[in-house]
Amino acid sequence: MATDVDTTPGPIEAEMIALCSSVCEPDAAMAARAWARLDSLTKPPRSLGKLEEIAVRLAVIQQTVRPESGPGAIVLVAGDHGVVAEGVSAWPSEVTLQMVANIAAGGAAINQLAEYAGARLVLVDVGVAGDTSGCAAVVQAKVRPGTRNLATEAAMTREEAAAAFMVGARIASELAADGIRVIGTGEMGIGNSTAAAALVAGYTDVPVKRVVGRGTGIDDAALARKKAVIESALRLHRPSTSDPFATLANLGGFEIAAMAGLFVGGAAAGVCVVSDGMISASAALASARICPACIPYVLPSHLSLEPGHHVALVALGLEPFVELDMRLGEGTGAAIAMSIIGSACVVINGMATFAEAGVAEGGHTEAVDL
Amino acid sequence: MATDVDTTPGPIEAEMIALCSSVCEPDAAMAARAWARLDSLTKPPRSLGKLEEIAVRLAVIQQTVRPESGPGAIVLVAGDHGVVAEGVSAWPSEVTLQMVANIAAGGAAINQLAEYAGARLVLVDVGVAGDTSGCAAVVQAKVRPGTRNLATEAAMTREEAAAAFMVGARIASELAADGIRVIGTGEMGIGNSTAAAALVAGYTDVPVKRVVGRGTGIDDAALARKKAVIESALRLHRPSTSDPFATLANLGGFEIAAMAGLFVGGAAAGVCVVSDGMISASAALASARICPACIPYVLPSHLSLEPGHHVALVALGLEPFVELDMRLGEGTGAAIAMSIIGSACVVINGMATFAEAGVAEGGHTEAVDL
Repeated sequence: MATDVDTTPGPIEAEMIALCSSVCEPDAAMAARAWARLDSLTKPPRSLGKLEEIAVRLAVIQQTVRPESGPGAIVLVAGDHGVVAEGVSAWPSEVTLQMVANIAAGGAAINQLAEYAGARLVLVDVGVAGDTSGCAAVVQAKVRPGTRNLATEAAMTREEAAAAFMVGARIASELAADGIRVIGTGEMGIGNSTAAAALVAGYTDVPVKRVVGRGTGIDDAALARKKAVIESALRLHRPSTSDPFATLANLGGFEIAAMAGLFVGGAAAGVCVVSDGMISASAALASARICPACIPYVLPSHLSLEPGHHVALVALGLEPFVELDMRLGEGTGAAIAMSIIGSACVVINGMATFAEAGVAEGGHTEAVDL
Repeated sequence: MATDVDTTPGPIEAEMIALCSSVCEPDAAMAARAWARLDSLTKPPRSLGKLEEIAVRLAVIQQTVRPESGPGAIVLVAGDHGVVAEGVSAWPSEVTLQMVANIAAGGAAINQLAEYAGARLVLVDVGVAGDTSGCAAVVQAKVRPGTRNLATEAAMTREEAAAAFMVGARIASELAADGIRVIGTGEMGIGNSTAAAALVAGYTDVPVKRVVGRGTGIDDAALARKKAVIESALRLHRPSTSDPFATLANLGGFEIAAMAGLFVGGAAAGVCVVSDGMISASAALASARICPACIPYVLPSHLSLEPGHHVALVALGLEPFVELDMRLGEGTGAAIAMSIIGSACVVINGMATFAEAGVAEGGHTEAVDL
């Protein structure tokens, strides 16, 4: 009943370690070539701001000055959380299963937003407490029907966490093989903002009160419980920088481990993976701690209202593209970001150069301050 | 050679005044119906933040809880500025004509971004100094080949400004009749960030130094000249709150007056019009001062790096959706916003309600603080 203390990798963790070792940082020299192309296009240099920075990020990831954003996919992983027993969520665990069925039937926000962004939606049960096998659209990859209660024991064993991680990694690899250029991450899991806040606090040492928020909408009493639960869990599991995977297993969730696998698996396949809200960002942070080489492949999307989201993005060195006060998850922010990433790609691909257009390059002032 | 002092409306200004009088504010009661529908959808209430606010804005404008964002159009109006003679721009006036040709040929940023957003691009010469008639794609509506120098005289006579205004208003009316649901505004005009800054200062009384920026990239010396030119122009033309149209004529430009006409014409036709950057926002501010009833039909898009843009948006009571450090104009920010507006519309239209999806509504905590 104690937290996992055996650090000898089991067979699945060994597979995960091998995958992490295989990730190569992309050659950053491509950035200069992408900037040179952007500066040759018919606009004042750098006048498209972050759109140009995104185009350069994609160019480096894909190692071409003509990067593509499509086709894209949103991978939505679902799992339940034992910590819900502590009264940390406004909604009961059953809602995870109900929402998976709703997403499978096309009724959720992410169905609309993924379709609008032209992205394929891949829905995965990696740890839902109920039975999702009646939903034909759900990829069946359940490791366990929900985590254990992180307040009293490890949420997952190392092998369970590694199994969920490898589910995400394999899906990323298959999507890349299928020609997908950008993968968005999304999740559904009642209670997972508690797990995510614990992870962000565990990985950053930022005080719990600065990473905990109201999730789907808890009242003051539940918020106080949520803080107390996370503080006690951090005392119990004692996150160590020398073993970031233990932190993920002890405090995370199946869908969070699977998203960490999406980030690393995408990086291993040379594909850009887009972070969504607080939960997804906690997974990105886990992946960055476990496999730092994956960081250049991770793109942000929005900044949610959940305070830990900002903390996680700062730790990742990522600046969000939009602030729309969203706090839904499901990959909804990643879907919005896909349109912005797509806009960045059409700019670097489709615009005419000054030479092609016969437009006078540069101004009459000497120093253009950029 | 003095600024225009005759305030008796000429025939075109009279037409403009009649149009402004015809604009009705939409019935705000639709907002409550739209919120009720949004709150019935399978997500925690208000968890899509500004996306939901945008959906409500569109619902009110279109007077339906099922608003549509498409088809959309970007109207890009072009004109030149006599004030360029003062050395306030990094680029010579010839670049306006060159860029119009580039846009007509499909080579500019807005061509890529409008196509990506699924928006029709309408390119209009309302005051270019050179001849654009060789470009088949350009709507020929030139009022005059460039404004006069606002530093020394009125940029436009009232009848000229009204003519440019009505060009925009008629295009908005035609697009609405053609089924366009959202109109984005865009412009091209070397020197127009000087005119726009003068307008924003003139309409808000915010000090010139807080509204002037580097436009397409001027150096310190040109920036100092730009400030001095605007300050002297404000002393010469003395903007008065009792005659906001005189301010537009004295300090504006043909493309700015045409955009003001787009905002009012769109409002008269019950269509949403999206503001772009600083220049477009200065036109939105002019339209709001001349015809306050049009304000509910105006949506923001991005926040540019030009300091006057923020000032103009605050004066309009609008909060931008994205901050991407863009400063190009052409309607590029409006095109990015169209994808976000489109996302808002598919959410309110396509999501399942709690009842339809069989998802338990609400949480177990008593007070959900929203």
